[in-house]
Amino acid sequence: MIRFDILSTFPEMFDSPFSSSLLKKAQEKGLVQICLHNIRDYTEDRHRMTDDAPYGGGGGMLMKVEPVDKTLRSIGADREAIPIVLLTPQGQVFNQAVAEELSRHSRIVLLCGHYEGVDERIRTKLANREISIGDYVLTGGELPAMILVDAVSRLVPGVLGNAESASEDSLSFGLLEYPQYTRPSEYRGWSVPEVLLSGHHKLITEWRRKEALKRTWLRRPDLIEKMELTEEDRKFLREVRQNDPEGGDR
Amino acid sequence: MIRFDILSTFPEMFDSPFSSSLLKKAQEKGLVQICLHNIRDYTEDRHRMTDDAPYGGGGGMLMKVEPVDKTLRSIGADREAIPIVLLTPQGQVFNQAVAEELSRHSRIVLLCGHYEGVDERIRTKLANREISIGDYVLTGGELPAMILVDAVSRLVPGVLGNAESASEDSLSFGLLEYPQYTRPSEYRGWSVPEVLLSGHHKLITEWRRKEALKRTWLRRPDLIEKMELTEEDRKFLREVRQNDPEGGDR
Repeated sequence: MIRFDILSTFPEMFDSPFSSSLLKKAQEKGLVQICLHNIRDYTEDRHRMTDDAPYGGGGGMLMKVEPVDKTLRSIGADREAIPIVLLTPQGQVFNQAVAEELSRHSRIVLLCGHYEGVDERIRTKLANREISIGDYVLTGGELPAMILVDAVSRLVPGVLGNAESASEDSLSFGLLEYPQYTRPSEYRGWSVPEVLLSGHHKLITEWRRKEALKRTWLRRPDLIEKMELTEEDRKFLREVRQNDPEGGDR
Repeated sequence: MIRFDILSTFPEMFDSPFSSSLLKKAQEKGLVQICLHNIRDYTEDRHRMTDDAPYGGGGGMLMKVEPVDKTLRSIGADREAIPIVLLTPQGQVFNQAVAEELSRHSRIVLLCGHYEGVDERIRTKLANREISIGDYVLTGGELPAMILVDAVSRLVPGVLGNAESASEDSLSFGLLEYPQYTRPSEYRGWSVPEVLLSGHHKLITEWRRKEALKRTWLRRPDLIEKMELTEEDRKFLREVRQNDPEGGDR
């Protein structure tokens, strides 16, 4: 069981994504609990302001520290005990290893900032962790929070119907996925590679490993560098390099 | 004006994120048009199957080529003329430069595959582009499509209220954001740096540039390597390195 507390000024944004397929079932089974908190409910001024202009001038509005602090206190989020994650482009880059690590916690707090900015004290005094889902500018932390909840929930035991599915995903191995095909075996003249129709298990496994290595080398050599390769992998990669010295099938 | 056609088996997932704040206003103003297409509507078999088991065995279900092809034809998506983007972890890594490039198109088609896999012919024969929003495994391409629509729409002229906001975002400069503060100037003993309260414009600009450089160097040296630095930037970075030879404030 994992519990996510999400702090946002747009909690209604989460309605439809969290009522769909996987996350809906995970919540119904009691494996994932998602609690949404509207930061605006913790403002005390007449206009219920959650943001304000930056000191020192400049465009954009910043999320204020006080309502976030009050929300965190009211939900009993203990900074020493659980991850309090600010979603921000300044953060640690999210990847499958980070998702796996987070999935071992029983409770995670997600702070959705405006991407225009948050008061620095939210970052340094309230959150204990900052995560970025990628190097692009978004309107707020809401979509990144959904991404994180989806990626982490999939790793909670029982959430995926088929126990294999999570660990077989290519990124769990550090490689991109090999090409996959389903019926029909021919469509508009586009056909499925013979080997996959052969029923020859050993050849299929070998073909898949080679194709995954080849694709990863051509598209994401950075991933190959981080991997431990077998002697056979290395041999195959030398062949690929010889046949396609330029790299890049794109 | 930009038009997104999104192909998905879960079009209802997009309801609440696309009815919120920025994207809602952009659609109302006629600057962004979003058309959702349910791939299931283009199946012809009795069970309206959009996925099937992989040839050669293995877990997971793959998205079939035929319904996707029929949807694309029915919406007049011309592969030679417009980006037909498959959202997949195997794709080109999405970043702000890719968002900027995409924002110059008037129409973009987004294919949301199951992350378990799609038939290879969707990738090679139907899509003309593959994009990954990051190295993590998600349930499907729906959340990545939302991310892409948000990041790209922000760059369409008129979508952001304040013309400055998009270009002032730190990632547009290749640097992480400098620390920002808003009222109150002191909260629970946590105070705002003096310089920001000084009203001294030149000092503030200098402080911000230095802090942005420092943070980027400490957290994301990979971004610094890709940047063009001024002589002054270089001088300041030398100072940071001397004061904090280990790197890392985290």
